[in-house]
Amino acid sequence: MTEKTALTPATHTTPPAKFSHGVRKGNILQVAGQVGFLPAVPGQGPTVAGPTLREQTLQTLANVRSVLEAGGATWEDVMMLRVYLTDTAHFAEMNALYDDYFAGLKEAPAARTTVYVGLPEGLLIEIDALAVLG
Amino acid sequence: MTEKTALTPATHTTPPAKFSHGVRKGNILQVAGQVGFLPAVPGQGPTVAGPTLREQTLQTLANVRSVLEAGGATWEDVMMLRVYLTDTAHFAEMNALYDDYFAGLKEAPAARTTVYVGLPEGLLIEIDALAVLG
Amino acid sequence: MTEKTALTPATHTTPPAKFSHGVRKGNILQVAGQVGFLPAVPGQGPTVAGPTLREQTLQTLANVRSVLEAGGATWEDVMMLRVYLTDTAHFAEMNALYDDYFAGLKEAPAARTTVYVGLPEGLLIEIDALAVLG
Repeated sequence: MTEKTALTPATHTTPPAKFSHGVRKGNILQVAGQVGFLPAVPGQGPTVAGPTLREQTLQTLANVRSVLEAGGATWEDVMMLRVYLTDTAHFAEMNALYDDYFAGLKEAPAARTTVYVGLPEGLLIEIDALAVLG
Repeated sequence: MTEKTALTPATHTTPPAKFSHGVRKGNILQVAGQVGFLPAVPGQGPTVAGPTLREQTLQTLANVRSVLEAGGATWEDVMMLRVYLTDTAHFAEMNALYDDYFAGLKEAPAARTTVYVGLPEGLLIEIDALAVLG
Repeated sequence: MTEKTALTPATHTTPPAKFSHGVRKGNILQVAGQVGFLPAVPGQGPTVAGPTLREQTLQTLANVRSVLEAGGATWEDVMMLRVYLTDTAHFAEMNALYDDYFAGLKEAPAARTTVYVGLPEGLLIEIDALAVLG
């Protein structure tokens, strides 16, 4: 019997419902949809990093990374990133930020799907990830 | 060679195309996107549980659960739930229903991503799931 | 230590950012979101197979298949297909094409989720896939 472990980075705000920011079971690690919320401040609700795509993309990637690290994984272990944007006009800028962010990657980059959806007001990007460790 | 098995709960209507409501292979179980259709009635097409978010959310979760059970899994095995809503105004109510539904969960709750998409007319929610058994 | 391998079919255009068209690690294979781009022509940008849902659906499925094959997998190994359409009016036609395409499948068909999202202009469908080899 392999245990399923919740991954809860210290920097993360409490999820708004009964779900985990990430879970790991055996060598599979799933990161829940992350958005551009700044590190949690006790007694304060979630605060978005800023109004720009740049600020939110970098914070979102940092938040995904925190969950990966809480589960003992790194970007090298990630198989798939799902990127949800709200505007097709953001694709080129997000790709430029993405390329900079992952410039140092040593293994094959993860697969990726990008689609355009609705998100709660003020949010421009959401990303989740599937990693396989080992 | 591990076999891939289709999971077809007796209560489910036939999928509208050549896909399975769920599949299991080894310890991986994938549940297809479920919506709020009531248990199938022979000779009748799919009927949605009702027009409200509450009715559809509870029926959708029941349908995901039936597929999990057909594959020998429970909610405890679920790593990821993808929740598709059609309206950001439904988030709070869906979360309240979700929390009630999963109140008895003994292990770490699954990770989750919620995004807002279009669905066929009359449907307010769709959920799929990835489980790792074992 | 299992290696993560990028899957890059010769027919595919270079991804527009630092991601892989597919990756395989151990028995898990993830195909990135594929669209209806024709096989790459050196010195030319990506060209969509045509304006119709039929042309794009068949080309998209061919592109998913190329990535699967580059990773040593077939449709029989696929657990999940995520189908992104832009218009609920396309559901019935896509299902008919899907059924024809998968008519010869010998094992249980994959699970599937279909949702309606925005895609870059001119694109009507995007599909990604998760396979478990074995």
